[in-house]
Amino acid sequence: MSSIRVVKQLLEANEDCSNEVKEILARKKVFAINVMAAPGAGKTSLIIRLIEKLQPHYKAAVIEGDIAGQVDAEKLDRLGVPVVQLNTSGACHIEAMSMKKMLTYFNLDDIDVLFIENVGNLVCPAEFEIGEDMKLAIVSIPEGDDKVVKYPLLFTKADLVVFNKFDMMRFFNFNDQQAEKDALQLNPQTKVFRTSCQADGGIGTLYDEVASRISSKLEEV
Amino acid sequence: MSSIRVVKQLLEANEDCSNEVKEILARKKVFAINVMAAPGAGKTSLIIRLIEKLQPHYKAAVIEGDIAGQVDAEKLDRLGVPVVQLNTSGACHIEAMSMKKMLTYFNLDDIDVLFIENVGNLVCPAEFEIGEDMKLAIVSIPEGDDKVVKYPLLFTKADLVVFNKFDMMRFFNFNDQQAEKDALQLNPQTKVFRTSCQADGGIGTLYDEVASRISSKLEEV
Repeated sequence: MSSIRVVKQLLEANEDCSNEVKEILARKKVFAINVMAAPGAGKTSLIIRLIEKLQPHYKAAVIEGDIAGQVDAEKLDRLGVPVVQLNTSGACHIEAMSMKKMLTYFNLDDIDVLFIENVGNLVCPAEFEIGEDMKLAIVSIPEGDDKVVKYPLLFTKADLVVFNKFDMMRFFNFNDQQAEKDALQLNPQTKVFRTSCQADGGIGTLYDEVASRISSKLEEV
Repeated sequence: MSSIRVVKQLLEANEDCSNEVKEILARKKVFAINVMAAPGAGKTSLIIRLIEKLQPHYKAAVIEGDIAGQVDAEKLDRLGVPVVQLNTSGACHIEAMSMKKMLTYFNLDDIDVLFIENVGNLVCPAEFEIGEDMKLAIVSIPEGDDKVVKYPLLFTKADLVVFNKFDMMRFFNFNDQQAEKDALQLNPQTKVFRTSCQADGGIGTLYDEVASRISSKLEEV
């Protein structure tokens, strides 16, 4: 039974710390977006596309979460925005404690929007609140349309769900109407978008939604 | 510090139990294949293709690991082989304890090859030995060629690495030569295969390797 007790303590400690992060971000007027998806779903590409559209209006930054390496951080660095690589050394998700620590590497007064690219994983990242304002979950078309029902926790918590690599629809057996229904059944408040980072499809519509949420928070605090 | 101690205990308990599973499988002459990959990489499809080829020679069975649901178990059921669904209720991997429990649902005297489809996840399943004879790791082409370096533990441990959905090479930026080099650098003993379950490519070559390893064990014990 001791393992169960410890897990509970970890989750409680995480929640306390997540609330601290929320307070810091509110005080510094930073909107944080936790981007979660399976490996290779297009997290980095989608963040790049969104930052390109945000840049005329908002100052963006990125926390790049990976088990190892800095492949994605290098891609993001080309945008000229602050990027900090968080190597989790084997951990399969980012926790609020790491998030709080990572904030110290940024000048938060000079950031409006902070993307957190979580570790590629549809399971564990969804369990840990990290003080974010918005959870964005991506399913890529080649993964198949059953990902929503097979990994329900993430889609129960996601504010926005993105079906990415949508230009690949003709090659894969993906019923996007059904997957959208499944997502809405898990979370009736969620909104579903269809994007292609390569073919530049649907990014504008997703950007409009993200920008509207950012401006709501930044005007309010 | 208590959390670190508990994790160590869990891993030690897992190792003991993994050894017990190994003994049971050796006594019953069952070859177990732990199939690991990200969500949607094609684990179920590849298992189906391999079983189709194995069926004339060996009796196969499947443990289907999922967080929730039984979508894949239903697909496998059509093969007419014993399939048992293991719902991990949120856990992101299969542990040896679950594996041992699952074995009681099968008539092991009537099984030669047992596939274990692990939870879709490139991180955690690699940490837990489950008494398997072989670890098969899949990367699908749409995920991108950086998955090997970004999730090194799995590829350090994998006996066979499969680049699946290989018919999609022309649509995605995937340098298969480099990814193969990366896999061999992590584990010089690993063997890399290229398959397409839809286009039926490369399955025969992979089957030959799998069948040769199965027959080695079954003749030896």
